[in-house]
Order: sequence, then C-alpha cells, then structure tokens
Amino acid sequence: MNMIDIIDKKRKGLELLPNELNYAFNGYLKNIIPDYQMSSLLMAICIKGMTDKEIFELTDLFIKSGDKLDLDNIKGVKVDKHSTGGVGDKTTLVIGSIVASLGVKVPKMSGRGLGHTGGTIDKLESIPGFKTALSREEFINQVNEIGFAVTSQTGNLAPLDKKVYALRDVTGTVESIPLIAASIMSKKIASGADKIIVDVKVGNGALLKTREEAIKLSEIMKKIGGRYGREVETMVTYMDIPLGTTIGNSLEILEVMKILKGEENNYLVALCMALASKMIVMGKGISIEEATKEVQESITSRKAYTKFLEFVKAQGGQIEKLEVSTITKDVISNKKGHVVDMDAYKFGKLSLDLGGGRIVKDQQIDPKVGIVLKKKIGDDVFPGDVLCTLYISEKSKFDLNEIIDYYTFK
Amino acid sequence: MNMIDIIDKKRKGLELLPNELNYAFNGYLKNIIPDYQMSSLLMAICIKGMTDKEIFELTDLFIKSGDKLDLDNIKGVKVDKHSTGGVGDKTTLVIGSIVASLGVKVPKMSGRGLGHTGGTIDKLESIPGFKTALSREEFINQVNEIGFAVTSQTGNLAPLDKKVYALRDVTGTVESIPLIAASIMSKKIASGADKIIVDVKVGNGALLKTREEAIKLSEIMKKIGGRYGREVETMVTYMDIPLGTTIGNSLEILEVMKILKGEENNYLVALCMALASKMIVMGKGISIEEATKEVQESITSRKAYTKFLEFVKAQGGQIEKLEVSTITKDVISNKKGHVVDMDAYKFGKLSLDLGGGRIVKDQQIDPKVGIVLKKKIGDDVFPGDVLCTLYISEKSKFDLNEIIDYYTFK
Repeated sequence: MNMIDIIDKKRKGLELLPNELNYAFNGYLKNIIPDYQMSSLLMAICIKGMTDKEIFELTDLFIKSGDKLDLDNIKGVKVDKHSTGGVGDKTTLVIGSIVASLGVKVPKMSGRGLGHTGGTIDKLESIPGFKTALSREEFINQVNEIGFAVTSQTGNLAPLDKKVYALRDVTGTVESIPLIAASIMSKKIASGADKIIVDVKVGNGALLKTREEAIKLSEIMKKIGGRYGREVETMVTYMDIPLGTTIGNSLEILEVMKILKGEENNYLVALCMALASKMIVMGKGISIEEATKEVQESITSRKAYTKFLEFVKAQGGQIEKLEVSTITKDVISNKKGHVVDMDAYKFGKLSLDLGGGRIVKDQQIDPKVGIVLKKKIGDDVFPGDVLCTLYISEKSKFDLNEIIDYYTFK
Repeated sequence: MNMIDIIDKKRKGLELLPNELNYAFNGYLKNIIPDYQMSSLLMAICIKGMTDKEIFELTDLFIKSGDKLDLDNIKGVKVDKHSTGGVGDKTTLVIGSIVASLGVKVPKMSGRGLGHTGGTIDKLESIPGFKTALSREEFINQVNEIGFAVTSQTGNLAPLDKKVYALRDVTGTVESIPLIAASIMSKKIASGADKIIVDVKVGNGALLKTREEAIKLSEIMKKIGGRYGREVETMVTYMDIPLGTTIGNSLEILEVMKILKGEENNYLVALCMALASKMIVMGKGISIEEATKEVQESITSRKAYTKFLEFVKAQGGQIEKLEVSTITKDVISNKKGHVVDMDAYKFGKLSLDLGGGRIVKDQQIDPKVGIVLKKKIGDDVFPGDVLCTLYISEKSKFDLNEIIDYYTFK
C-alpha cells in the first residue's frame, strides 16, 4: 500500500477501504505520512466527500488513537453538549447550571480559546481560585455531588483528531461535513457521555453556510452516535453576530450570572433556554413543553443561579473576587442609523487585541479586559450614542474609529 | 491576502486572480508558503481545474521565476521536441539526428533519469568522452555548425515549476491538465525554441489515460505557445509498452544507431519517423508528404546516421569505445502463448535494479547493464524461447522467474 495511490483513489472520488484509511491516518499519527501528503488527501476528501462507511471508519480511528473516558461511576443520565463555538459564546456555563439544577448530570470537558474565539476554561479561570484541572476522581465526584463540573483535564482523547484538526486549520480543509462529523463525534464518544446534544451553527460566521448542510451534518452525527449506542440530538442555530452582550473573560462570567438571575432577554438567552430544554427532554424523557417549563422555572426560582454558585465554589472559585478592568473607553457613534449587522469575527479579534485572548498556545491572557456591546442588531443609533464600551489595560491595542465600522447601519 | 482564503476559493471552484496566484506560488518559491498548504491548493486545482486565464498566469509565473535562454544567435528555424517520456524512450537522439541532417536546427536540453524512466543525458554519457555539460557558447556554436546539440546545462530555467513538480510527484497531484500544460510550456518557452513539438503520451503507462484528455492538453498548450509567439504542434501517441527493443544506456545508444541505419522496423521507428516528419513540416513549411519523403531519404542515404556520428564527435564522444556488459543472462519462457501485453513500468524498474538507473539524484549508474527484449507484443512464444536477455554486473539484482510475468500471454 502507498499513500499516493490512496490519495489518487480519493481524488477520483472512490471509496477508501478501512485498511487504506488506517494506513493513511495512523501513518500520519506516527509521523510516517508527512503533512503535505495528508493535506492533499484532506483536500480530496473535502471536495469528493466520504461515504457513511468511510466516516464511521475514520471516527473509529480517531477514537481508538487515544483513551476512552469511563463515566460509569457517574450515577444517572449524563448529557453532554457540544457547540461549534463562536464569539461571546458562554452557553456551556448557562446551560450546565440550568440542567444540573434540574437533576440531569453534565460532565463537561472544555478547551481554551485560540484565535478570535474564546474558551470556557479561560472564562472560568477569570474567577480567582477556580481550579480547571480536575483529576478523574475529582471530576466524577463533583458531577455525582452537584451535577455539573468543567475540567480541562481530558487525558489523551482522540489525539489523531487533534493532529488532523491542526492541519485542517491551516490548509483550507475545515469545511467538510464528513471531517467535521468524525472530529466532533470521536471526541464526544471518547469522553463518555450517554447522550449528546450538538449545537450546529450555520451562517456567515460559522463553518457551515446553509441549513441544508447543517441538516446533513446532524444526520450523519446521529448515525455515528447510534453505532456506539449514544443518543445524539442536534439544534441548528444561526451564528452571524456575537452571542449576548459581552466578549471577554470576566465580563462573560458576569453576563452568565445576569442571565441565570433572569436579568437578560436576548437571542443568547433564547438559545440557552432551547438547548437546556432539549437536554432535559433527553435526560428525563419528558415532553418538550414540560422541559421548557422546568427550565423557565429554574431561572425564576434562582435554582439555576444557585447551582452556578455551588459549581464555582466546588472548583475553588471565589466569585466575590471576580474583577473587570477599571479603565474603560466608550466607542461613540458618529453615524445615525439602524444596526443591521455586526462583524462577529472582528469583535472576537478586538477582544484578542485588548489582551483577552491568545494567538499562540499557552500565551498569558488578561481576564479583566473585554467589550460590552451597548448597541446590537435592531437598535437605532444616533451620533453621540455609545456603541460599545472597551475594558482595557495599558497593553491594549485598538482604534476607536475602526471599531465603529464593525457595525453596519442602514 | 492569505493562503487559506486562496485555497478556499479554489476548493469552491472559483477562478484565482493573478495576484492570488502570484501570492501562493511565488510565496511557495520563497519558502513563505509551506509544502502542506501548497499541496492542498494543488489538489483543489487537480479536482476543480483552472480557467485558461489562470493557466496562462501560472505558466508566466513559472517562466519568470528563472532565466530565459536566448537562442537568437542560432541561425535558421529552431524546433524543440518534448516528450512526457517513458521506458526505453530514445526518440530524442533518433529525431534530433534526422531533423538536423535535413537542415532544421535542434537545440535540446535534456535531463537525467530518475526512478523507472531513463534520461537522454545518461544515455549519452555511456559514450566514453561524451561531454553533456556545454557552456551557452559551446551549445549555440554546435547547433549553428552541425544543427544538433544536447546539453544538461539549463541554467536556472523555471525553478518554480521544478519545486512545484517535486511536490506534485509525492502528493498525488500529477494528473492535472492545467498543471501539466503550465509545467511543460514554461520550460519550453524559457529554453528559447521558436517551434515546439510535444509528444503527448496516453495509455495505462502514461499520465493521461484517454485520447480526450490528450486533445485537451494539446489545445491548451497551443494556446499558451501562441501567447509567446511560439508555434506548438502535438502528437498524441500510445505509451503502454517499452519503446523499442532495448532498455539501458549503452544498449539504447546501439539501438539508436541501428534505427538510423534503417536496420529496425517497429512502433518506435514509426513514432520517430512521424515526429521527425512533423518537425520538418514546422521547420521548412513543406507538406507532410514531402517531409515524410525527406525523412525516409535521410535514413536510406545514411545522412541521419552520419549526422549522429558528427554530433557525438562534436561533444567529445568516442563511439567506438562504447561498451555493453559482457555478462548476460537469458530469461527463458516456461509458457506457450501469444504476447498481448508487457509491463513497461516493471521493465523500467528492472533496469534500475540491474544498476542502470538511480533512485536518488546524483547516484552513480552503470551504463553497460540493461535489457534486450527478444519477444514483444504480437509475438508467439514457446517454452524454451528467450523472452529477453539481461546485461548484468556483479551488483545486479533480479529474479528470472519473476521477469517472465512481466509478459502477459494469451
């Protein structure tokens, strides 16, 4: 067998056999197959696609390349949530608190942010004392006791997917439904949840541009889940604008608390309610109407908010010590109009430039900086109005006039 | 501009702009764009194709990446020949001698063999004393004086094509008409000939599998030539079997001499006659019937053979000292049947194993070893018949029984 024949076969649109996929992908993991051959194969897959059989096989190779987390010691139904992520996406913390407060277990592995998107682990680390690296025992015990835990300790889950993903990221081969499906599902299956809900984002700011693609991805993920006895549900949601009203680590934690106290009402809140309701349906087997009622009640009764505080405390966080920067700068509009669009990518990038994110791994970040969006889509703006407020440090880089153009007025 | 956006654009089948092609390909030449990104782009080009405009631009980038050879000091019409090459392909030496003997100039740059295909330079170096590295002046003077010269000294022609080709070779991205056209034509245009004939090979052993693809390639090459004021003619020929009756350096020189003396009559001879006739048409502007007559006459009169001897002498070769190995081994058939196929690739590989080729660049080769094919397609074979004779050295590696299976009998 040789890699060039395998690439040729996929270039011609033929189905690769299990041993060919194994040769190519495990060879890549072992550094026998070089990057430039794998990227050529990945591009051929992007354009020519994969059969279900190939996708199942690739998912299996990803899973088998690493450890499988055993969550059997967690009592009750465990529901995991995955999102393709985005700017200002703090859904995990809102949903985890709600769902756990209603008795369904949420064992959650999360990552750090890279580039213009944030990461849940970074957000939590803005809380002084918060410990994100839990041992397997600590993780399982906490989920058993309070129903919700977030850890960065993922052991060695699907390292092959990790390596392939890093290459896809720099070779224009990210937008492929088979590769996205295998990547998401391998990590979810290896991390042990019984039931998985995936927030499939579509739109200009997302990997998938159309609803049709999102549905196709949903279907293949459900099929993959079925092969491993996991129930998979999906929700297709739109991702064109920053989620919620804040971007930045401490600021987003404050926003999570406001949402859980019922003090916010926007698209992000609606999205969290819908996702949480679906997870309750999966966890309890009740109707979506009953689940939605329970979710709403968890907010009005402050059950979900209390659960969040309990969760933060369990992981050593001292929420009362959370700080945001005291230096702020308002971005003042010089235009008059109706906001019809906001550039999520540019806002994410701005948060990075302010010091809130990292360009390379393991870079030090400043949790106190960020952006509070004062005007959002649908708002009317007059000259002199504050569009957004920047929370900055001495190291922050920004150009106030440029930021005005992140908004589109009509 | 960034490479990932460029890759994405081509992945979606869109036309790349001149500045985008420049960014990607010149960036690759300067090592700013890594192999793994270029191979991903090349695969997208392979599958999605290129517009004529893109092909013209890419050819131009290839040409401009290096020197352009100025052949203006060569008097008369210069016709260059290109072949996609093959096992036992010694057409250059036969054709060059014929065409030059009829008064049309053939200034020829050639390469060394790599892998299972031979190279004209290696074949010539089997002649003791033959000098293949001519200076520009020596090259031009010799073409002016005797009409034919072969040199390995190509200056720095189309180095970008060279770099891209090396990557295509190991990433399954060779089979692309736009990339093949840009590669061939950039080298031919940079090397200065007025008129160019291209032997486009099709068949199992060739890059292109169908006549339709060969015609498509021919058309785009003619269009490219037109943009640089070069006349391009093509000939679509079949390449499934070794060309002629010998494989190996000294042996092939002997075969060239036999052909030029009119002592051979096979597909290779017919191919050489046809190509030479077309070159005479291009060089003299006469009809194909007249040209064919002149070519045949150059053989019967020994004009072409005399030209070959003159050419060898001019480059310092002592043809009387040419040697083939004195150790031979016959491959005896144990089967009875009609030869319906021969594996050109395996015979090429065998010549390599005997010591006649190189696996890595600049490897020492043994000019005296090789294979003489005694049975070819169409021949009847009986047990005990000699299929072929190996000319070997102590270092030669081969398995006589295995070689029988390079033939397919019916």
